[in-house]
Amino acid sequence: MVRGAPAFEPLTPTSFLRRAAVVHADRPALVDGELRLTYAELERRALGLGGSLAARSGGPGERIGILATNSAPLLEAHYAVPLAGATMVPLNHRLAAAEQVAVLTHAGATLLICDREMAARADEVAAAMDGALEVVVEGEGYERLVAAGEGFEPEPLEDERGLLSLNYTSGTTGSPKGVMAHHRGAYLQALAMAFHSHLDQRTRMLWTLPMFHCNGWCFTWAVTAAGGTHVCLRTTDPTDIWAAIEGEAITHLNAAPTLLLSIAAAAPTTREGERIRIATGGAPPTPTLLAELAALGIEVTHLYGLTETFGPLAICEWQPEWDELPAERRAALKARQGVGNAIAEQLRVVDEAGEDVPSDGKTIGEVVVRGNNVMLGYYRDEEATDNAFRGGHFHTGDLGVMHPDGYVELRDRAKDLIVSGGENISSVEVEAALAAHPDVYEVAVVPVPDERWGERPVAFVVPRPGTTPDPADLDTHIRALLAGFKAPDRYELRDELPKTATGKVRKFVLRDEAR
Amino acid sequence: MVRGAPAFEPLTPTSFLRRAAVVHADRPALVDGELRLTYAELERRALGLGGSLAARSGGPGERIGILATNSAPLLEAHYAVPLAGATMVPLNHRLAAAEQVAVLTHAGATLLICDREMAARADEVAAAMDGALEVVVEGEGYERLVAAGEGFEPEPLEDERGLLSLNYTSGTTGSPKGVMAHHRGAYLQALAMAFHSHLDQRTRMLWTLPMFHCNGWCFTWAVTAAGGTHVCLRTTDPTDIWAAIEGEAITHLNAAPTLLLSIAAAAPTTREGERIRIATGGAPPTPTLLAELAALGIEVTHLYGLTETFGPLAICEWQPEWDELPAERRAALKARQGVGNAIAEQLRVVDEAGEDVPSDGKTIGEVVVRGNNVMLGYYRDEEATDNAFRGGHFHTGDLGVMHPDGYVELRDRAKDLIVSGGENISSVEVEAALAAHPDVYEVAVVPVPDERWGERPVAFVVPRPGTTPDPADLDTHIRALLAGFKAPDRYELRDELPKTATGKVRKFVLRDEAR
Repeated sequence: MVRGAPAFEPLTPTSFLRRAAVVHADRPALVDGELRLTYAELERRALGLGGSLAARSGGPGERIGILATNSAPLLEAHYAVPLAGATMVPLNHRLAAAEQVAVLTHAGATLLICDREMAARADEVAAAMDGALEVVVEGEGYERLVAAGEGFEPEPLEDERGLLSLNYTSGTTGSPKGVMAHHRGAYLQALAMAFHSHLDQRTRMLWTLPMFHCNGWCFTWAVTAAGGTHVCLRTTDPTDIWAAIEGEAITHLNAAPTLLLSIAAAAPTTREGERIRIATGGAPPTPTLLAELAALGIEVTHLYGLTETFGPLAICEWQPEWDELPAERRAALKARQGVGNAIAEQLRVVDEAGEDVPSDGKTIGEVVVRGNNVMLGYYRDEEATDNAFRGGHFHTGDLGVMHPDGYVELRDRAKDLIVSGGENISSVEVEAALAAHPDVYEVAVVPVPDERWGERPVAFVVPRPGTTPDPADLDTHIRALLAGFKAPDRYELRDELPKTATGKVRKFVLRDEAR
Repeated sequence: MVRGAPAFEPLTPTSFLRRAAVVHADRPALVDGELRLTYAELERRALGLGGSLAARSGGPGERIGILATNSAPLLEAHYAVPLAGATMVPLNHRLAAAEQVAVLTHAGATLLICDREMAARADEVAAAMDGALEVVVEGEGYERLVAAGEGFEPEPLEDERGLLSLNYTSGTTGSPKGVMAHHRGAYLQALAMAFHSHLDQRTRMLWTLPMFHCNGWCFTWAVTAAGGTHVCLRTTDPTDIWAAIEGEAITHLNAAPTLLLSIAAAAPTTREGERIRIATGGAPPTPTLLAELAALGIEVTHLYGLTETFGPLAICEWQPEWDELPAERRAALKARQGVGNAIAEQLRVVDEAGEDVPSDGKTIGEVVVRGNNVMLGYYRDEEATDNAFRGGHFHTGDLGVMHPDGYVELRDRAKDLIVSGGENISSVEVEAALAAHPDVYEVAVVPVPDERWGERPVAFVVPRPGTTPDPADLDTHIRALLAGFKAPDRYELRDELPKTATGKVRKFVLRDEAR
């Protein structure tokens, strides 16, 4: 069979910018405070930055950290870094400096790009890394890079399954793991997001979801594919969000339900703007929240995914007939995580032998998946990769049921994970940090439901004999080691922890008590 | 780098049916007269047929011809044949029997599936092939195949760039060639069509475009990807079309402008139904046609492509600001073929040396392209393939200009360009000017040899019903709009124009007549 050379082009999400710079050359690509860029300008800047990055001694495959709020440099990096043949490492800016150092060290990053907000933190991180890390700050230094690379012509991508980014996740086991995202997956996932979220040239996407989180669920590329406008927002203050919604005529935004709660609470009493489409994930939206948002002309789609699946693997795809159901039933249907998106394979729910559980909406199993929007593996961690990929599927660690109509609903997180404000908190990690306190003999951390954050951690502490640890002291201790949002809300002192016969802590007992 | 096995799935358009059979199991997939199938049923039938095809002695890679109007068997074949590992050869049912024999013989097809309408013709074709061709007719024989393969589990696709179908170009010129379409291209093209045409679960697509034509521009898979409904229509009678539009609550249809003309002419005087989206291609829609359709609540998108590019390679992507322009200017913008679709590479317009012509909207060159929605080549025709792929791009054979905004506008097929006294006259331009005359229903302009000028234009005009346009009046009209040398030397009035099965005017017939 003749294999025509013209009939193949590697799939990479940077191609969406190449297209937008032609098709949507003069349309607004990016708004970030006073800064406004057209797609022609965004491409010019991304190529300029890319050219400078490609010329560095780090060469192809260099890992480039980005420490930034939802700002122009972070969006530009989503194009410039892959165009340079390098690998993006977007950092969670809410982590403690020591955690960021650990991520950058593990990734082997040699350059860190940061926005103004993160400049001081970047210096702190670089200092801790003893000069192994160069820092470029938004402003003069960054603009020099953009200017120096002008006229850059990127090398063609060699392998569409090549490494695009390392997205570190705290995961369930405590130590952060570097999720290896590939070009092909990001390209396809971006197309699926553009399709399901009905993006087009009129789209004005408010960046409330952190771009560092799974590369913004690939909307960093999806909005560009549609020729819409990225509206950056460097804070998550609900007042700022509403000012942006009204001032920038926002049509779309993505956010975890916790943020949606505060958006709804801060809403203007009447609203006459265009309908807004919101995609949410991390936890199911509650009926109350859905009703409040509907009253504001906001339509909510429930998505489900993980860093390992380029963000939203599944969508609670709405069947038009459901519009006729009572509100409570609609909310129950919308709380389901749903079905694989347009480019995803369908989710499976399996028992411990890897066999599908019955589709009865009752039998709990683990959610597993395979397909083009699954990561390549964990960076430099073959053991964790092999474990996650056992049996030829990616194991999400989430427990759920399969409904008769093929929709998946999560029943329980893998029990060690606490999801707070869309962020994963590993109870194992918090326990390890607390156990380092001299007065702590034994400790267990469990989630409690929280109206605002979804879940918050609570610690059960068995004091070392002869001591009585002060909760304020424990709090100070933990905040010196971990990001503030990981610190437990309460510390309960106990003589002993409930355990199984084989000595494992019975966490479900503690979860009940904590409630 | 760890390459996780779970992170790859070959791209094939049959996966959209696999998904729809889960996500949209009970939604209407297909309407064909009295026949109504859900997606669960459509998958069950496609797997059944696929199982029987896979079990045939022809084995994997067998070429299976399909001779059918827009009917259930033709849509089912779009899934069953690739699921069987075989190659689809959809035939133009309007060709002569001898032409169909030539195609089936060239393809090496051993089985022909046909619908009731084509049963007699299929027998005629089989007879001419001396028993080398088995025929299965819609009805009892076909249903036996569907039933016999029940429970079929398809082999995984080995190569996403493998052969999916052979689509023989009807062509306005020359001998038909077998375009080799591949799975990856059809998958990506279907996603692009679903995205650009805003397909979703509420979509009800009326099949006016022949499915045999570039596999229905990949909408045979795109509608399924979106969970919409395929409404088959076995005729192209405008009365049947309007009955279907009203009776089946149609939201979308695709058709060449010639068919749109008759749809507009047969329209009810008032219409209160939902907005209909129409995609058209093959020739630019005229301002008059656009105005008539707009009055009926029909929105037209102009697409451009070839069988070699899985149908619509380009889209005249509408910029929201253009809504504010006067109708005439909007029509002129909409007449442009546009820009590469979301998954396509951008079109180039090149001179004979293969260099891009200036983006001045004036300099004529040939439109060339590369990318994932380009065919693998022409089946068993290396010479034609090499010629079409010279310089690493697919050469469309269409002549056009590149506008400063990156939009391509066709000026002519290479052989439709009229060269008169050293000046190029675009027949498309003259046709558009004539179509603006109130008495002109349809028009085609072709060159005739001329001793003095080399070539001169001649116009064939179909008058609007009830009118008899005066040539002198048409001449005055055209000279008011265009340079005098572009005015046709003669005007021939006709009841209708000769057309290909896909509605393109057969200009070579007119050229012969004009002589």
